[in-house]
Amino acid sequence: MPRYRIAIEYDGTPYAGWQRQAGQHSVQAAIEQAIHAFCGETATIRGAGRTDAGVHAIAQVAHFDLVRDWPEARVMGALNAHLAQAGERVAITAARIVPDTFDARFSATARHYLYRIVNRRAPLALERHRAWLVPQALDADAMHDAAQTLLGRHDFTTFRSVHCQAKSPVKTLDRLDVQRAGEVIEIHASARSFLHNQVRSMVGTLRKAGDGSWSVADVKAALAAADRAACGPVAPPDGLYLVGVAYGAPDNPSSS
Amino acid sequence: MPRYRIAIEYDGTPYAGWQRQAGQHSVQAAIEQAIHAFCGETATIRGAGRTDAGVHAIAQVAHFDLVRDWPEARVMGALNAHLAQAGERVAITAARIVPDTFDARFSATARHYLYRIVNRRAPLALERHRAWLVPQALDADAMHDAAQTLLGRHDFTTFRSVHCQAKSPVKTLDRLDVQRAGEVIEIHASARSFLHNQVRSMVGTLRKAGDGSWSVADVKAALAAADRAACGPVAPPDGLYLVGVAYGAPDNPSSS
Repeated sequence: MPRYRIAIEYDGTPYAGWQRQAGQHSVQAAIEQAIHAFCGETATIRGAGRTDAGVHAIAQVAHFDLVRDWPEARVMGALNAHLAQAGERVAITAARIVPDTFDARFSATARHYLYRIVNRRAPLALERHRAWLVPQALDADAMHDAAQTLLGRHDFTTFRSVHCQAKSPVKTLDRLDVQRAGEVIEIHASARSFLHNQVRSMVGTLRKAGDGSWSVADVKAALAAADRAACGPVAPPDGLYLVGVAYGAPDNPSSS
Repeated sequence: MPRYRIAIEYDGTPYAGWQRQAGQHSVQAAIEQAIHAFCGETATIRGAGRTDAGVHAIAQVAHFDLVRDWPEARVMGALNAHLAQAGERVAITAARIVPDTFDARFSATARHYLYRIVNRRAPLALERHRAWLVPQALDADAMHDAAQTLLGRHDFTTFRSVHCQAKSPVKTLDRLDVQRAGEVIEIHASARSFLHNQVRSMVGTLRKAGDGSWSVADVKAALAAADRAACGPVAPPDGLYLVGVAYGAPDNPSSS
């Protein structure tokens, strides 16, 4: 019974999120349907990151088991053919057979997210559903400075959705970098794992630091409050991308 | 009677191209309708580049005259509001009043295009309609070498659509650079003006150099043939972007 590890790119716009949910269309269901269409097996796939509705992935990682042993390239090609036929905005970018000790979710040692802000007055045409449009001028350096106060091991209750199912609000944030390139502001966030809505909650709070309404000390105080009410408005899903998942030693930079 | 110069970003996917055409929806018509909705005037706008169906723009430039004198910011804001209301994938990114000697099309001294290829086996999910998917491995350096043989003043009949209305097939190509960044190959093309389908025809031919089926000498011979039949298959519109238009001295790098 071989275990397959796949890397997945998707446009999250039309989906209710990664996870299968009754009565809604999810990325997980789209891939499970493609597996069934390909080989008739009813597999359950497990993803490294349970992205929300509207959130994208450049390299989500998932695994599933099949009874029959298919060549890796055949699995990738067949899934892509069935996904395309079904009109899904999901592509399998890699597939390989892995030991059955590999678990896409529980073996992951780091998750890497990118959040894209377009900072201009004009609406988005090419980047619609691909970024967050913020018309007020943002100071990316101030956002970066504020971001550094969130690094390390903390109780991130302030940046946690009320729907979060994690046992503990304590997480270790390894990277939160803010960089401007022209009118685009990119925020890179890395951690072993994140709370539900944590990246979007942190980005919404950093935006307040960027437009000058919050100081670095205000952001630090928001974290210390460990109170959801202290969070800035949560950033929309459109700008968020799961860009990679790492499985090596925690400080091994190689992602999927 | 003030003349307005505007910069325009658009997702070309749902449009029959830049130019107004009876019975089809164009970017030009979308903007002219927004002008009418805003101030009741029936203006004709003229664009610097008459992009084809499916071709995008990051900074198309156009001009139009209004009877009444509106502030620039008001024009930009009102046009964007009406474009959004109409569900158009068009955004006005800048607007300013210019002397009536300015003509977006005839004053342009350089047009800059970008063509994006994604070179991988997996289908496109996030980049669907935003790039050309080429599954065969491409050698970007070989493509760049072949591209250099097309620089300068030539009869570009080989790379000219049969629908081209230009008086002469002789044009001067100033830049044709091919660069790879990961799985993306970017091709930058600049000239005072291009023939109809010239960029897509050149890209289709460079692809043959990239997959090894044509040598640099083959590309040179295709140009010298001055024969449409010598052209490689024309690249699809999805990967093409009008990225800027220049109006200074020809060697002035400032674009719109």
